[in-house]
Amino acid sequence: MKLEDKLIAMEGGDSLFESKLRDLKFPVSSVFKSEGKLTPCSFKEGETLKVKNDAKRFPNSEKSHDNKILKGVQDGTIESLRKKVAVLFSGGPAPGGHNVLCGLYDLLKNNHELIGVRGGPGGLLRGDFFPIDQSSILNIKNSGGFDFLGTDRTKIKSEEQFKAVLSQCKKEDVNAIVVIGGDDSNTNSAFLAERLFHEGIQVIGVPKTIDGDMQFPPYLPITFGFDSATKVYAEMTGNILKDSESSLKYWHFIKLMGRSASHVALEVALQTKPTMALITEEIRRRKITLYELIEQMVALIIERAERGVYHGVILVPEGLFEAFDDVKKLIELLTEEFFKEKISEEEAKRSRSRGPFSERSAERKEARESFFNFASNVMAKKHFEKKHEELLSRLPDGFLDFLSQTDSHGNIELSKIPTETLLIELLENRLKEEPKKLPFSPLSHFFGYEGRCGAPSMFDLIYSYHLGLGAASLILSGKTGFMVGMGNLSGDFEPYGIPISALLAKEMRHGKEELVIEKSLVDLKSPAFLYFERQRNKWAKERCHNSPGPIQYREKCYEIPHSVALNEGYKDIVFEIKSS
Amino acid sequence: MKLEDKLIAMEGGDSLFESKLRDLKFPVSSVFKSEGKLTPCSFKEGETLKVKNDAKRFPNSEKSHDNKILKGVQDGTIESLRKKVAVLFSGGPAPGGHNVLCGLYDLLKNNHELIGVRGGPGGLLRGDFFPIDQSSILNIKNSGGFDFLGTDRTKIKSEEQFKAVLSQCKKEDVNAIVVIGGDDSNTNSAFLAERLFHEGIQVIGVPKTIDGDMQFPPYLPITFGFDSATKVYAEMTGNILKDSESSLKYWHFIKLMGRSASHVALEVALQTKPTMALITEEIRRRKITLYELIEQMVALIIERAERGVYHGVILVPEGLFEAFDDVKKLIELLTEEFFKEKISEEEAKRSRSRGPFSERSAERKEARESFFNFASNVMAKKHFEKKHEELLSRLPDGFLDFLSQTDSHGNIELSKIPTETLLIELLENRLKEEPKKLPFSPLSHFFGYEGRCGAPSMFDLIYSYHLGLGAASLILSGKTGFMVGMGNLSGDFEPYGIPISALLAKEMRHGKEELVIEKSLVDLKSPAFLYFERQRNKWAKERCHNSPGPIQYREKCYEIPHSVALNEGYKDIVFEIKSS
Repeated sequence: MKLEDKLIAMEGGDSLFESKLRDLKFPVSSVFKSEGKLTPCSFKEGETLKVKNDAKRFPNSEKSHDNKILKGVQDGTIESLRKKVAVLFSGGPAPGGHNVLCGLYDLLKNNHELIGVRGGPGGLLRGDFFPIDQSSILNIKNSGGFDFLGTDRTKIKSEEQFKAVLSQCKKEDVNAIVVIGGDDSNTNSAFLAERLFHEGIQVIGVPKTIDGDMQFPPYLPITFGFDSATKVYAEMTGNILKDSESSLKYWHFIKLMGRSASHVALEVALQTKPTMALITEEIRRRKITLYELIEQMVALIIERAERGVYHGVILVPEGLFEAFDDVKKLIELLTEEFFKEKISEEEAKRSRSRGPFSERSAERKEARESFFNFASNVMAKKHFEKKHEELLSRLPDGFLDFLSQTDSHGNIELSKIPTETLLIELLENRLKEEPKKLPFSPLSHFFGYEGRCGAPSMFDLIYSYHLGLGAASLILSGKTGFMVGMGNLSGDFEPYGIPISALLAKEMRHGKEELVIEKSLVDLKSPAFLYFERQRNKWAKERCHNSPGPIQYREKCYEIPHSVALNEGYKDIVFEIKSS
Repeated sequence: MKLEDKLIAMEGGDSLFESKLRDLKFPVSSVFKSEGKLTPCSFKEGETLKVKNDAKRFPNSEKSHDNKILKGVQDGTIESLRKKVAVLFSGGPAPGGHNVLCGLYDLLKNNHELIGVRGGPGGLLRGDFFPIDQSSILNIKNSGGFDFLGTDRTKIKSEEQFKAVLSQCKKEDVNAIVVIGGDDSNTNSAFLAERLFHEGIQVIGVPKTIDGDMQFPPYLPITFGFDSATKVYAEMTGNILKDSESSLKYWHFIKLMGRSASHVALEVALQTKPTMALITEEIRRRKITLYELIEQMVALIIERAERGVYHGVILVPEGLFEAFDDVKKLIELLTEEFFKEKISEEEAKRSRSRGPFSERSAERKEARESFFNFASNVMAKKHFEKKHEELLSRLPDGFLDFLSQTDSHGNIELSKIPTETLLIELLENRLKEEPKKLPFSPLSHFFGYEGRCGAPSMFDLIYSYHLGLGAASLILSGKTGFMVGMGNLSGDFEPYGIPISALLAKEMRHGKEELVIEKSLVDLKSPAFLYFERQRNKWAKERCHNSPGPIQYREKCYEIPHSVALNEGYKDIVFEIKSS
């Protein structure tokens, strides 16, 4: 075969790596085995969860699951009527999603049917189904991405949507729906399960998020995808740390995914030992102001420069700016002043609807200038506490520019702030105030999309396959309104069923009270954070960095996330399933 | 051992991966073996290179090497007086650098001495030497980065600097210097070798660049580092391609390293099959204007949208904007007009020294406004050809902002243009002109620093070790002014000595004629480019993408760059050294 023909034969998912990975064999936990054959587990009732919402909006679900955790047990005798199961992805992709399908398929293939839903929840509403066969499953096995089905972010919440789902399922004779998605998707699944209860259509959730903010230990210490994504980010961060120690002249600011929670930043820090890693939860809890943080960073830069070290690496979670009390307060004050002084009642009304500092793009330059003038006037009048004045005086153009961009409700979206570049600008401005000129060459990076569709790590590909087996087992046991959980992640996995409605709590979202799954944040008292806190000063001073390298499949480097191992009290970061 | 203690024991380069990689064994080409032992090769004379410069500035070097290629041959009998060899990194880091040191050390350790130079050429001038011992070598083996020695970009070119090097070498009794660096570093090594010829100090270059723009096939088809860096970029690009096919709604613009040459973009395209990949050399050679390129991209976006595909991935080499004739011409015209009409003679003189559109930051806002007005006036007067007028009318704020930033000579630095974001802005503006509104959600990425210090690929770690063996062999054979080459990269490597001065040619740099090593550009008639050209339309239309995955060490996925295999006419992309 000519070289060109060999290359063409590799197109479309058949590179050397993709082919080898597809054929990789891995062990299955004994709970899903009986007489050497793959079998569904059955479930026995365990702990009763303390329900967080008093709304009693799930009468059918509660009657059926009684808010009890289900624990999977080995059972070779499960029999079930023939089921047709539809599976879909919901929300952003995470490595391992395809192996959830493989696990489902392998348990269902003999007596049942698995069909795919194209394009996420939107496809479910449209009835965009297609049969999944053995050859597709062999093709997607162990591969990253959600590209086999596609995904979207449609929320199925309204009665009209529920009816559409019901009608599509009836048309196709679907008996069960598996939704592979994050916290919001699982919330919606709880409502859908409740609504379809008497229609005899089961709904099972498979928890997914690379952000790591869905955790219910010991039943779900972490979601699938977190391990692979953080390993990709840790590979890149480790490379940058080496670059920093090689080139000896750059300060790298690495923004990492994680809007509300900093699990990703913490995990990458534990794996790579950077000069500094910011944890949003710590800033919020300890009420650290932006002003104080900049001073901390300046102290670090100066301390290293005094030792002749003009480089470093700082990890920045993308939600950072939302954590600062002083920034929020300043925006509030400025907005208030703006409405009080700058414009007439009528103008205020008009302006309020599109945000105080926003203008159409043609007027942007002018608007910015007028904002600058306005802010200086406000400062001059000393209406502000000193700390807000100081903060305002330091904010670079980029920040004021950002203030003029609001969402459709006229709110300033702190979440859209260009975190890493703004931090750099603030530091550059602040360092100019130092009596001695310091060399400071900053570079910024954002590691995000690269990690959502990487090849699943050894841990994630085994784990997500087991989640598929767990989801199929829940369906074949006739359960609905459950999310699959998996405990004991350092050894033989233990499958669980978690009643989703029991997890829901009231929360204000977009000014409305809603039932949601509360996001798990980094706990400042957790073993992982405490360990990080004990080590970080050393990491700032000494060359402790690691380059944990690209994900390996034959090196016996099968690690679980360090933060999970620490928090769950495992003895090692290496995991191994003994039974097969 | 407690988990925390295990984690602490891994700090500073001892993660599971780093430890396993350090212990990885690999075969050595038979040319460096004799009776089962590692031995230097000797060299016999080969082809005479046609010298490109007529300056005859290298009388000593030429007398000694006669512009002849040296070919390494197996020889167990090389004897040499005891040598003390100093080794340094020069320029940006590249994966494999540490293994060059390991190769050097392993051939020198018994009868000679290897010392390291800290912090690049700057360290050589300062005499910042330190002994390299066995335990350091075991510690850095197979690891990425240049962090063991550090590096910098000091150019050693002046007589004063040569004298400083000589004095430091004499003080330390150094007999030979090995410079691991790129084209400019090797140019400087040629001058240094010539200058130190009669002092009895040998200078040997080891060619390094991740950009792939130093190629002298068959003696040096590619430099070390290119394979690992492009594999890291291909891993990330493959992940983004999967994300694009999963999320179904983003157009990703990925900027890749490579200022003058697009070897990196071509190689990543060959490995991943993106929707589109821009090659600077093609744009320059075929005189494609920015205007035309935008129209091509719009056609692609529309063609896909008509099939319901609202996503894609486009690779953009960082040097893109320097390739457009129309952009260059427009800047020339605007600059000319500016001096002709806007300002007085005296002002012009003052302004010329800091660039026509540049102003101090305090005056920036005003300067920008005045430039906008000026440019509109120029347009209104129809002084321009239609194509320049159209181009100018499309250029976004970001471009005009960029025009006001010049280097210290007042030149507009096209190389500093924010390539990927500007392309996106241009496309967004252009798509607004379409009669039918198209969904277009662009995202931008830059893969650069992540690839310079990644773990060396199997190919690079073996290849760079062999370069070290080759460099030591040249030294022990008493050679100077040579650069190590390595041929037959798909099988048993063949070491070469390439007389550096023979490669130098005159080129204009910063307005001065200089002798330099010409950069190897992507040849539009090369097999690799022709193959890409034949395949790319299919890649734009069908789902052909690959996710070549993280670099593996035990999967037998030992690939060489696809572009190298194609250009050298190898039968496979898999490489294997048979002898050991």
